[in-house]
Amino acid sequence: MIKVVLLGSGNVAYHLALALKSATNVELIQRYSRKESNTEFFDTTIAHTTDLKQLKSADIYILAIKDEAIFNLCQRLNHLDGLLVHTSGAMGLDVLAKRIRRGVLYPVQSLSIEQKIHLKEVPFAIEAASANDQKLLQQLASEISDHVFELDSKKREKLHVSAVFANNFSNFMFSCAEDLCKDHQIPFEILRPLILETGKKVQYMKPLDAQTGPARREDQDVIDKHLKQLQGQKREIYSLLSNAIIDRYKRE
Amino acid sequence: MIKVVLLGSGNVAYHLALALKSATNVELIQRYSRKESNTEFFDTTIAHTTDLKQLKSADIYILAIKDEAIFNLCQRLNHLDGLLVHTSGAMGLDVLAKRIRRGVLYPVQSLSIEQKIHLKEVPFAIEAASANDQKLLQQLASEISDHVFELDSKKREKLHVSAVFANNFSNFMFSCAEDLCKDHQIPFEILRPLILETGKKVQYMKPLDAQTGPARREDQDVIDKHLKQLQGQKREIYSLLSNAIIDRYKRE
Repeated sequence: MIKVVLLGSGNVAYHLALALKSATNVELIQRYSRKESNTEFFDTTIAHTTDLKQLKSADIYILAIKDEAIFNLCQRLNHLDGLLVHTSGAMGLDVLAKRIRRGVLYPVQSLSIEQKIHLKEVPFAIEAASANDQKLLQQLASEISDHVFELDSKKREKLHVSAVFANNFSNFMFSCAEDLCKDHQIPFEILRPLILETGKKVQYMKPLDAQTGPARREDQDVIDKHLKQLQGQKREIYSLLSNAIIDRYKRE
Repeated sequence: MIKVVLLGSGNVAYHLALALKSATNVELIQRYSRKESNTEFFDTTIAHTTDLKQLKSADIYILAIKDEAIFNLCQRLNHLDGLLVHTSGAMGLDVLAKRIRRGVLYPVQSLSIEQKIHLKEVPFAIEAASANDQKLLQQLASEISDHVFELDSKKREKLHVSAVFANNFSNFMFSCAEDLCKDHQIPFEILRPLILETGKKVQYMKPLDAQTGPARREDQDVIDKHLKQLQGQKREIYSLLSNAIIDRYKRE
């Protein structure tokens, strides 16, 4: 039985609490948060404290808190014996003090309290500073997810950049489409099924093979026609991305 | 009962044939294709011809063929009485000869024979040159889809540009992420659930509200750290899109 203390009260903490509570070989013995917040969302049978001095002895402490708070909170946890892991994709292992047993348990998904999700299907990138802790963390991660990947801080950093493209930038493309629709009194809902299908398609295809559109066909007439209809940054984006797509397939 | 002749043998023709066959108040009386192709995918009970002279008399003729073939095929259909519609998002009404009854029936979805899809849930943008034909086309479209939008050629052109952002460019963002993963020996599958969730999220949220990431937070430290890890076009794309996101939210 792996004893776990969870620190945090946000989106990631919420989903981890649910998963840890229902995992077979895990005991979630306590939850800490700086103040009483979001308590209505959390299982009230989980012991809760707002006092770091009251933290129980555990095998693993999970810091499911904001990136910018990790360093400071860790400084106040020097006395702990267990493995301390953060859940951030953007932070290295070394944001945690070297003198403690440290690791990372990063869920590669955009999580929010409002949104139901099966954590079992969410990929986790894990890392620990020692082989023993890596093994322990692998055990814990496998209890909550079927998709556990060992990635060192360097690779996780690259993964985080990739995720900006895959998630943030693709959403911004949807946002540009939404703006264009609004500008021309076209209901955005007309594009929603297409967007969903775009995401579904790359669940079984490589994005490189799924690419379609004027740039993929090198249809310069359509590209020019579209550019004439755009101004400012959207025009710049259309131009840069079309050229990048054309160049990308020249390399194939 | 609306009598329909379908011209084409590709992805759009395949899905339209399925939907038209099962529609209540529609009779798909014939299918035409230039040559015998993809015949194994089509219902063999639909009369088929490769001879334009053999086209039956119908209320609506649907040209589900490639954009670049529409003009030429239309030139050979001057003798038809019915309403002739094409299915392209990129072509105006005027690619069809003015002397015939003309319209557009554009499914706003990426369709492929391999991929099952409920056409009922696919939005259709329709347009016809006369009010009577608009009514007829609305009747037909409502038989195959629950989401029919009347859009003139000008709006459809804007919709097509928007769809390039929503579909082609977002897929290219996935493709960039795939490249980055490959460059650093990270399995791309680690990002697939995140991509699916990105598309699902904007089914009920506005993309503008769903935006997250370093640029949304104006976290210049992370942006700079990411830029240092990128070269060439990916660096340019990261920089332009991050600036565009920052500017976009300054306008809000």
